[in-house]
Amino acid sequence: MQVNVQSHVTPSREHSDVNERQRRLAAAFLRVRAQTEQLAAPLSAEDCALQSMPDASPVKWHLAHTTWFFETFVLERAAPGYRPFSAQFRVLFNSYYVAVGARHPRPERGMLSRPSLDEVRAYRVHVNEQVATLLQSDDVDAGWLELIELGINHEQQHQELIVTDLKHLLAKNPLHPAYLPPPSATASEAPPVAWIGLPDGIRQIGHAGDGFRFDNEEPRHRVFIDGCEIASRPVTVSEYANFMEDGGYRRPELWLSEGWDVCNSQGWTAPLYWQADSVEPTAFTLHGLKTLNPAEPVCHLSFFEADAYARWAGARLPTEAEWETLATPRQIYGNFLEDRRFHPAPARMDDDRPAQLFGDVWEWTRSSYEPYPGYRPVAGAVGEYNGKFMVNQYVLRGGSCATPASHIRATYRNFFPAAARWQFSGVRLARDIR
Amino acid sequence: MQVNVQSHVTPSREHSDVNERQRRLAAAFLRVRAQTEQLAAPLSAEDCALQSMPDASPVKWHLAHTTWFFETFVLERAAPGYRPFSAQFRVLFNSYYVAVGARHPRPERGMLSRPSLDEVRAYRVHVNEQVATLLQSDDVDAGWLELIELGINHEQQHQELIVTDLKHLLAKNPLHPAYLPPPSATASEAPPVAWIGLPDGIRQIGHAGDGFRFDNEEPRHRVFIDGCEIASRPVTVSEYANFMEDGGYRRPELWLSEGWDVCNSQGWTAPLYWQADSVEPTAFTLHGLKTLNPAEPVCHLSFFEADAYARWAGARLPTEAEWETLATPRQIYGNFLEDRRFHPAPARMDDDRPAQLFGDVWEWTRSSYEPYPGYRPVAGAVGEYNGKFMVNQYVLRGGSCATPASHIRATYRNFFPAAARWQFSGVRLARDIR
Amino acid sequence: MQVNVQSHVTPSREHSDVNERQRRLAAAFLRVRAQTEQLAAPLSAEDCALQSMPDASPVKWHLAHTTWFFETFVLERAAPGYRPFSAQFRVLFNSYYVAVGARHPRPERGMLSRPSLDEVRAYRVHVNEQVATLLQSDDVDAGWLELIELGINHEQQHQELIVTDLKHLLAKNPLHPAYLPPPSATASEAPPVAWIGLPDGIRQIGHAGDGFRFDNEEPRHRVFIDGCEIASRPVTVSEYANFMEDGGYRRPELWLSEGWDVCNSQGWTAPLYWQADSVEPTAFTLHGLKTLNPAEPVCHLSFFEADAYARWAGARLPTEAEWETLATPRQIYGNFLEDRRFHPAPARMDDDRPAQLFGDVWEWTRSSYEPYPGYRPVAGAVGEYNGKFMVNQYVLRGGSCATPASHIRATYRNFFPAAARWQFSGVRLARDIR
Amino acid sequence: MQVNVQSHVTPSREHSDVNERQRRLAAAFLRVRAQTEQLAAPLSAEDCALQSMPDASPVKWHLAHTTWFFETFVLERAAPGYRPFSAQFRVLFNSYYVAVGARHPRPERGMLSRPSLDEVRAYRVHVNEQVATLLQSDDVDAGWLELIELGINHEQQHQELIVTDLKHLLAKNPLHPAYLPPPSATASEAPPVAWIGLPDGIRQIGHAGDGFRFDNEEPRHRVFIDGCEIASRPVTVSEYANFMEDGGYRRPELWLSEGWDVCNSQGWTAPLYWQADSVEPTAFTLHGLKTLNPAEPVCHLSFFEADAYARWAGARLPTEAEWETLATPRQIYGNFLEDRRFHPAPARMDDDRPAQLFGDVWEWTRSSYEPYPGYRPVAGAVGEYNGKFMVNQYVLRGGSCATPASHIRATYRNFFPAAARWQFSGVRLARDIR
Repeated sequence: MQVNVQSHVTPSREHSDVNERQRRLAAAFLRVRAQTEQLAAPLSAEDCALQSMPDASPVKWHLAHTTWFFETFVLERAAPGYRPFSAQFRVLFNSYYVAVGARHPRPERGMLSRPSLDEVRAYRVHVNEQVATLLQSDDVDAGWLELIELGINHEQQHQELIVTDLKHLLAKNPLHPAYLPPPSATASEAPPVAWIGLPDGIRQIGHAGDGFRFDNEEPRHRVFIDGCEIASRPVTVSEYANFMEDGGYRRPELWLSEGWDVCNSQGWTAPLYWQADSVEPTAFTLHGLKTLNPAEPVCHLSFFEADAYARWAGARLPTEAEWETLATPRQIYGNFLEDRRFHPAPARMDDDRPAQLFGDVWEWTRSSYEPYPGYRPVAGAVGEYNGKFMVNQYVLRGGSCATPASHIRATYRNFFPAAARWQFSGVRLARDIR
Repeated sequence: MQVNVQSHVTPSREHSDVNERQRRLAAAFLRVRAQTEQLAAPLSAEDCALQSMPDASPVKWHLAHTTWFFETFVLERAAPGYRPFSAQFRVLFNSYYVAVGARHPRPERGMLSRPSLDEVRAYRVHVNEQVATLLQSDDVDAGWLELIELGINHEQQHQELIVTDLKHLLAKNPLHPAYLPPPSATASEAPPVAWIGLPDGIRQIGHAGDGFRFDNEEPRHRVFIDGCEIASRPVTVSEYANFMEDGGYRRPELWLSEGWDVCNSQGWTAPLYWQADSVEPTAFTLHGLKTLNPAEPVCHLSFFEADAYARWAGARLPTEAEWETLATPRQIYGNFLEDRRFHPAPARMDDDRPAQLFGDVWEWTRSSYEPYPGYRPVAGAVGEYNGKFMVNQYVLRGGSCATPASHIRATYRNFFPAAARWQFSGVRLARDIR
Repeated sequence: MQVNVQSHVTPSREHSDVNERQRRLAAAFLRVRAQTEQLAAPLSAEDCALQSMPDASPVKWHLAHTTWFFETFVLERAAPGYRPFSAQFRVLFNSYYVAVGARHPRPERGMLSRPSLDEVRAYRVHVNEQVATLLQSDDVDAGWLELIELGINHEQQHQELIVTDLKHLLAKNPLHPAYLPPPSATASEAPPVAWIGLPDGIRQIGHAGDGFRFDNEEPRHRVFIDGCEIASRPVTVSEYANFMEDGGYRRPELWLSEGWDVCNSQGWTAPLYWQADSVEPTAFTLHGLKTLNPAEPVCHLSFFEADAYARWAGARLPTEAEWETLATPRQIYGNFLEDRRFHPAPARMDDDRPAQLFGDVWEWTRSSYEPYPGYRPVAGAVGEYNGKFMVNQYVLRGGSCATPASHIRATYRNFFPAAARWQFSGVRLARDIR
Repeated sequence: MQVNVQSHVTPSREHSDVNERQRRLAAAFLRVRAQTEQLAAPLSAEDCALQSMPDASPVKWHLAHTTWFFETFVLERAAPGYRPFSAQFRVLFNSYYVAVGARHPRPERGMLSRPSLDEVRAYRVHVNEQVATLLQSDDVDAGWLELIELGINHEQQHQELIVTDLKHLLAKNPLHPAYLPPPSATASEAPPVAWIGLPDGIRQIGHAGDGFRFDNEEPRHRVFIDGCEIASRPVTVSEYANFMEDGGYRRPELWLSEGWDVCNSQGWTAPLYWQADSVEPTAFTLHGLKTLNPAEPVCHLSFFEADAYARWAGARLPTEAEWETLATPRQIYGNFLEDRRFHPAPARMDDDRPAQLFGDVWEWTRSSYEPYPGYRPVAGAVGEYNGKFMVNQYVLRGGSCATPASHIRATYRNFFPAAARWQFSGVRLARDIR
């Protein structure tokens, strides 16, 4: 999960006009910070305090942790005489940076009624002002600017988590509370699937150039791809319902062995948030209970479900190299966080290009999350960002309806364990050329 | 946990002046309901929403559940044309009354950011008004009056739980937040222990007469007591510290076998809330961190710790029959909820009577919680109140600093599992006459 | 669980003829040791090595542990120059005697393919010879004789556990293997239940006199009993099947709250070992699968099931004082280990006295396992025998078809947790006189 | 885990002399079956019955399951009129073939004292005779021959598991029992590490040609490899001890995040089987406790430990493509099951080629276990062999001292979860060319 701010920030390395760069960075900083606060605006202090599972965090914690990031990695070191807003927040709002020191245990993030939401908002104001002041000073070292840019991208990742963690919490409530009123209606049919061929050969994947990227997107390197075909759009609710009707959740031969065990021990019979015993597919959404549009991409699937669906359909998941090869030349547009729809929408019918590569739903790939050849984590505590998670996770690509538009790009690697379902995660099929 | 409202409510059964009884009951109702709200008054909506463990509930849940009790057991049946405040609250705020229908799962009480605290307060106002109206009408059937009286006592039990559950939650917060400012200082010495003899013979225990009592206090019946002696006051912090210094938490021969297993698996080295590595005994309290007064009764002990301490001291826990025999003739006074101290205080030095039988700390007895001979639960759903918990629990007597004064009496039986520590539970010693 | 050897051992304390006492004890020792070995005789080394759950032990472990008891508590201290058979067995075969030193973890008793069954048999021979030699010497101190008598009774308890732990293991095997061929058929009707009245008043319970007893049976003391009635025989399979047909396992109002939780989490729908989906009650027995005789006492019930059945039947469980009062004047006869039936048999029809108080099935009482007034554990390591288990256990009385006949008596207190089902545990009803 | 029988079996597909092929296959079948029985020969029935953890199986189960494989997949279908040895064994000894029907639960394989070891041996004799008879008949369809060849390779995999599961069981025994007497001493110094370069470019990996291979080794396909260097031999005990002395198990920055969690929750401070508190590295082996030779390859490492060691050493794990590229041209020789050493030995000093690529210890790679491009499982139940495990596992290469020599080859892919340690798993380093 992360974002590219290249639309607002000029390239950093060759550009000489530091002041111009600082100015643009300051604008991006304030814009993204305000966007986070806007996400929390419709919520009560109670909504922001609760934690629904160890993997999710309270909204208040996200608001504070993203602020802690700027305070710890930038202000404490770059701003002369900076005094932390609260010494105790250093521990309370550290997520997993071992090098920074002690952390409050993750499963207990929901035990903190204090500091209050109002105090956390004051913390944000304090840090916003300090960072803004820093960015107005002369000669800010490029290293600090890079950390601020990292912090902005980090905050965009947490914007997505605010949305998905909130959804998980509200879904626990039998009252089915809504975060926002329902969005406008969408088309009721999806375009037919076309299969887009990729010929075999050596390709290059990974990030190149000057824009922002996370360390896990580097280095750019060569891979060999066998010829294959990739579907023009993600699998829809209607298609997934066919799988379910055909016994998809009752046929072990369709599943990976571990997936079948998880499916049974968790009692899965449908994607997360679907309501049992409804005639038409109905699910909890951020707008309350909703009859799903059959044409929209199915989401809240685990890797295991995506894989089982693909096997049932006589296909497979794409690798991340295949996905990136397909996506690289495409323009980034789609249904993103800024659309405030917070739910996938059907692909447009009048489009013969690959649809919905970006936005709507993250797409599980068959690739485990591993270091690219020659990968080297950033030095220092921020080096704990990506590399240490490179085991037992699978890569997702393309962003979702909860991803900020400026955060996604073709080389972006998101990753989750194979059983995770609370992100807006769907599936796009691939198949070998025989 | 429960209370006796006999000081404000006239005896129910023989008295003919029903209006007078209704008038008194209405006053008690409003007084107790207001007292509950006063307990929550210093708390934020966030404080009231969180749940720190499956055995504890959010304050907001207590506020709503006590209200649900009146609505479900009284208003829905006794008030003609009563319309529930919210149909969904019937499920959300049912605790364990199987006969009433579905319940929200106990460990998920902390998942409910909605209804908001404000809505729950409105729910209270609504039900308060309706019950008050009912009590102003003529000829309310005595059965309803008894249920209202039960509801008042039920609410007093939850007042105590609000205090203890809140303490458990705040203790999870590394900021050590205070509920209230610290109370006034207390005497620094406790009176020496005297041993009060009880001769052998048949005694009667259990409730008799007209005042309110829970069904588990009945019927009054005969027991045979062997001669014994009971300590004049509970064990103090200072005495308990001696046990700890003598290896109390490291010597299995002092413990029941199951207690020793729990002690090790939970890593107990001191009573709950004590801070490790402090020179003087220091503990989290409802006033934040506090150096404990050596003369005050030790509390937040499990049955297992109370039992191990007694064995170390060459004594034993009293049985509930012994305790009740000692306490029956004594006046009820002590450090109660209304004192707003929310922490035990030392016994008074100038007192040669048994001290602190009521208030300060609940006293573990050696008696498992079992039905009295001839016990019969009340008919209907309120019959689920006590009887179904009569297994694997141990009886505590006397009330604590979180118990409302009008709620306690000599026949009152509180009960918790042997490993529970989050109540204000202490220990008074007994010994056989050899 | 334990036995009284008073039939073969003359009273110890006043009797002056020590040699006669030693001679009788030696005979009892050899008889009981041989009986244990006879129990294992039909079993393979594989049968004896496996452990089916942490609460059960392999037969081989029982064979060794009972031997360890004599070696550790008698030979090492009383036999001059005694050399332990194996230094490592001291740790391997210690059960729970903390004072003796380290123990092999209980759940790993089934990890020991070495020592082999043959080595353990050699260990038994070695210790048998040494104890026999000791008992032939002059002037053995009375303390050692008492420990040998304790060891004999201890071994009888493990005889019962060999039977019940073996049954639990064989029941895990889908082949339904038999320990022994089926016993002869039994009568197909049980006598009707009569209710035997006990008037109220002070009674004495607990052990008195010179015969062997465990410390938990002492001291004899007075209790007050309210008037009640007790059923003349235990509940039968046929009666229990009526409870099941009436929804006994689906109606929470019949159960203690904790019992209902256990019932659901464990998926109980019948007593342990009953086979699902058979038309007539069918269960795994030590003779393989067997259609149960409707007239035989139902067994393998937990306390929770016994209690729920009693509530359904409009009755309750007896207290241990009531049970002992009823049983004290009765002769001890019944279906015991020596009958080698290893399964309960119906009560005899021609009998108008209380039937089956001893043997067939242990009878759950409503009494939690607690120290009698003035109870004092034996000094030293053997003092860990009983007292430290006196919490969260319930008392059973009367012995079963797996109890040695000479081991049971009216004052005998067995105890297990409320959810335990793998003993031959049944239920006899009681009811208040209204 | 698996083996190649190409040395004894002539290529299957083009060869026309079926009788010659059948003759060779029959010889291989009997040789491998006898080898399995020889492994169990030093063990008692007790040794063969126990199960030390859910992931390991009793030796008796391995003896039976490998036999079940031939019975179920070959005899029942290919041998006219074949009558199963026991209908119940079909369920008891099915491992994970869902398509074949019900299975005995894996964690309960150690609950089966029946059938006895002798009965299982009779089962083996029965099936051996029937398969031998089948292979003497004319015109056995090539499909059956392929299944027999698969069964032989399957049995070789279980030979390795017999060794590693037995070691895990014996290690649970505080007596440190030996499987076999200690092997001869080995050289006390390892050759220095040389780094062998692999230039970048497209390579082909995966199986080609006619010999036996598992489906997961196919299809042969192209990969792009970046230039790198691979160590000439595995990491030794001495080198690993340096990592430990340098705080390897206490420094989170060296570990993957999940690895660090496992390390702490499991309390790892050394490789599996190492004894705490010994001055020199000492470990439990199949010859009892042994001071380890500093020059021998370290083994019983998890992927997490191998990865942490590599990070500490400034290197990384090789990918499976790199490993296979290095190993493909090398001759297969080393310390294998047939050496009956069952413990790794130091590399030979006089060797300047890459050492120990085969035998001694499996080598963890950085590659998650995934399907090769175009992978297609075999049809039918044997298709459950490999593909369904391709998630959350990591690939190991090269075989170990418990692998049959004829079973390993350069394309062979073994796989285990990242936390598994009970195989003979070690580590060979790789590094990028900078």
